[in-house]
Amino acid sequence: MTKLTFPVLIINMKTYSESLGKRALELARVAEKVSKDLGVCIAVCPQYVDLRLVAENVDIPVLAQHADTVDPGAHTGHVTLEAVKDAGAIGTLVNHSERRLRLDEIRMVIEKARRLDLVTVVCAATAEESGAVAILNPAAVAVEPPELIGTGRAVSREKPEVITRSVDLVKKVSPNVPVLCGAGVESGEDVKRALELGAQGVLVASAIVKAPKWEDKVREMALGLLPRR
Amino acid sequence: MTKLTFPVLIINMKTYSESLGKRALELARVAEKVSKDLGVCIAVCPQYVDLRLVAENVDIPVLAQHADTVDPGAHTGHVTLEAVKDAGAIGTLVNHSERRLRLDEIRMVIEKARRLDLVTVVCAATAEESGAVAILNPAAVAVEPPELIGTGRAVSREKPEVITRSVDLVKKVSPNVPVLCGAGVESGEDVKRALELGAQGVLVASAIVKAPKWEDKVREMALGLLPRR
Amino acid sequence: MTKLTFPVLIINMKTYSESLGKRALELARVAEKVSKDLGVCIAVCPQYVDLRLVAENVDIPVLAQHADTVDPGAHTGHVTLEAVKDAGAIGTLVNHSERRLRLDEIRMVIEKARRLDLVTVVCAATAEESGAVAILNPAAVAVEPPELIGTGRAVSREKPEVITRSVDLVKKVSPNVPVLCGAGVESGEDVKRALELGAQGVLVASAIVKAPKWEDKVREMALGLLPRR
Amino acid sequence: MTKLTFPVLIINMKTYSESLGKRALELARVAEKVSKDLGVCIAVCPQYVDLRLVAENVDIPVLAQHADTVDPGAHTGHVTLEAVKDAGAIGTLVNHSERRLRLDEIRMVIEKARRLDLVTVVCAATAEESGAVAILNPAAVAVEPPELIGTGRAVSREKPEVITRSVDLVKKVSPNVPVLCGAGVESGEDVKRALELGAQGVLVASAIVKAPKWEDKVREMALGLLPRR
Repeated sequence: MTKLTFPVLIINMKTYSESLGKRALELARVAEKVSKDLGVCIAVCPQYVDLRLVAENVDIPVLAQHADTVDPGAHTGHVTLEAVKDAGAIGTLVNHSERRLRLDEIRMVIEKARRLDLVTVVCAATAEESGAVAILNPAAVAVEPPELIGTGRAVSREKPEVITRSVDLVKKVSPNVPVLCGAGVESGEDVKRALELGAQGVLVASAIVKAPKWEDKVREMALGLLPRR
Repeated sequence: MTKLTFPVLIINMKTYSESLGKRALELARVAEKVSKDLGVCIAVCPQYVDLRLVAENVDIPVLAQHADTVDPGAHTGHVTLEAVKDAGAIGTLVNHSERRLRLDEIRMVIEKARRLDLVTVVCAATAEESGAVAILNPAAVAVEPPELIGTGRAVSREKPEVITRSVDLVKKVSPNVPVLCGAGVESGEDVKRALELGAQGVLVASAIVKAPKWEDKVREMALGLLPRR
Repeated sequence: MTKLTFPVLIINMKTYSESLGKRALELARVAEKVSKDLGVCIAVCPQYVDLRLVAENVDIPVLAQHADTVDPGAHTGHVTLEAVKDAGAIGTLVNHSERRLRLDEIRMVIEKARRLDLVTVVCAATAEESGAVAILNPAAVAVEPPELIGTGRAVSREKPEVITRSVDLVKKVSPNVPVLCGAGVESGEDVKRALELGAQGVLVASAIVKAPKWEDKVREMALGLLPRR
Repeated sequence: MTKLTFPVLIINMKTYSESLGKRALELARVAEKVSKDLGVCIAVCPQYVDLRLVAENVDIPVLAQHADTVDPGAHTGHVTLEAVKDAGAIGTLVNHSERRLRLDEIRMVIEKARRLDLVTVVCAATAEESGAVAILNPAAVAVEPPELIGTGRAVSREKPEVITRSVDLVKKVSPNVPVLCGAGVESGEDVKRALELGAQGVLVASAIVKAPKWEDKVREMALGLLPRR
């Protein structure tokens, strides 16, 4: 099942060496296994060179980490949404804090992705930015205070108001756009708290990619998405 | 044989839809066939998402179209040289006119590629730029006056002095760096003329990618690289 | 009176040679004269090198055309808001179609300007972008479909729905933020129509800067801002 | 005397608040006084908004800190060389480590400056980059290892080989282009050493701008340019 459903755990493999090539596929398979075990949507974002490899071999949603706005043609060294789609991905992250885009580019990528039946998960640094990108109607907004990324200090613990204000603002302008959150999220407990604050999923990178045992960590986080019993 | 040798025909697939995915592989196989038939080095530059697919399936040099300077790590949406290498490419184009880089980035990519045993073919817009990048000791310099790219008006016919001056300048500063040329090159005759002017190969995109019969066009161009008999 | 009030006519001098140096000051004096004659707010946006010259010599609002997000310090070749303020400007255009910014930069400039008591007039390409930047609470939003800029085909005639939808969206998210419009606006009639559509002013460049008689054209446009009698 | 002559002391005011507005003029006047006292060329690089103010009021060379490649026209928020010239500057720094440019932009700015009778002092991070930009024939090359900028550890003490190799490489490709150096230079002794290594001047920022007594520090550095008696 390769459609994005919510709540969702999105694993951003960044350009970590731990998740390159064969290991990208391994990690994706772990995600697929846990996703099936728990019945929870888990998506992965491999590096460009691994998109096709991963998408062809797992049955979970695969997203690119970024795509350019250009159409197919004479654009050496760019990443078109058409290529992303051809590789088997169902969409892309947009405007990640490590790959920020101009506002007009964000809009153009969202619009073009919609025409190509691709989804966009657009990152935002603050609640205000969450609202701003929500107006452009992406598939989801992921709010990540950049100062917490990679720190292990989870946004859901350290800055819960960023999540609640994002949820409020997004609800006001585009009620159907789910809000995800990221930055410092590293435990199942962090994930649970995020959902209690109104988020419909999390975007995670180092906490999983650099975990000693991928399956344990993915399972822990995915369990955080499930309603408390 | 996946080492870059000279003279060389480099086929830049850009982000053309005609050379995406399966068709990238087809084109690469055509290049491989002609390369073996004629004993001439032909390299291909597929899109990122096709790098691995192509490199795993043909026995000719595969280059990326661009690579970022960042090391593996928290760099969402970037292309590391490590990823390029892992995908099976032997190096990358650098500073193509559609993906220009800062001078310090060009230097850093060349230096890092050298450490990783990857080759760099660095593009330049003018003879002076050819000299400038040659000082940084890439595997080759490819001079392409941007105003001729994609026009069908070959640099070797329209601006032969750009080639001869590039060759002179590069010889002066880095005698071992071969000069290639591109821009508007579309026939075997254009290729021959380029070699007569001192170039040791050509960088071609649309003339091949958009040719009605790939094999005929690749063969025609590759023949242009062979010494007149 | 150097505060921005609405309705407003903002004259963007771009980097036109017709409005550089002494001529920037001349144009600003024409704007000042018409502003006083008609009791209408007219602001000017000179080039960086002319900001101080103009601001010291006229009594109308002066805006920069762009400012960087960096604070004072080791940032060679940048334009700080502190420098803009020191030069006597009351604020800056942000995200003009010829100087697009990343979303996070737009937010940071708006926030920082607010702290420094400077105003920001943030440009947007579409109604959706207007809504997006309005959420960030700038002093005003200026919607300009880039494809009409400099064409003489006024947005208020050619794409009136861009203005009305911008006004609606901005009202929804930030009711106190006035919407201006630009792109192709070249007559007093275009200005009137813009106001009828809900805009509270216009952003004009070539129509005034390249007019044979500046005063006539500025007066014509400013009159378009006045309520019909 | 507003021509650049060598040896030269170039004072980069960056966007420091200590050298903004009135204080930029004060610092420029100090430089002018010391320059006349000692008969040594001292140039200053104020912020854009201060270019005209400074150039109109001192009789020493004034340079911009950066200029864009665009021609006058519809380029909101850019800095044209024409504006730099109109403001009274005799040229510009290019490619400073805090404002790196693409190689083709460096070439275009140098070429355009030459047509406008403006000088370009092009920064480089390494000896190889020094050689690369020297081929493009700027008025001078300024080599500054970025890792030493602002540290107080002078390039002439810490990495003397960067200077000597730059001088050698530049001599080889463009014998008439003087090499300056910068980064960490903070005393007259550092300046002397730079000249002994073959440099024909220094590019200094914080060591002067943040000095408690501008005149003392400027004099100390300028004295370092004079031949030992």
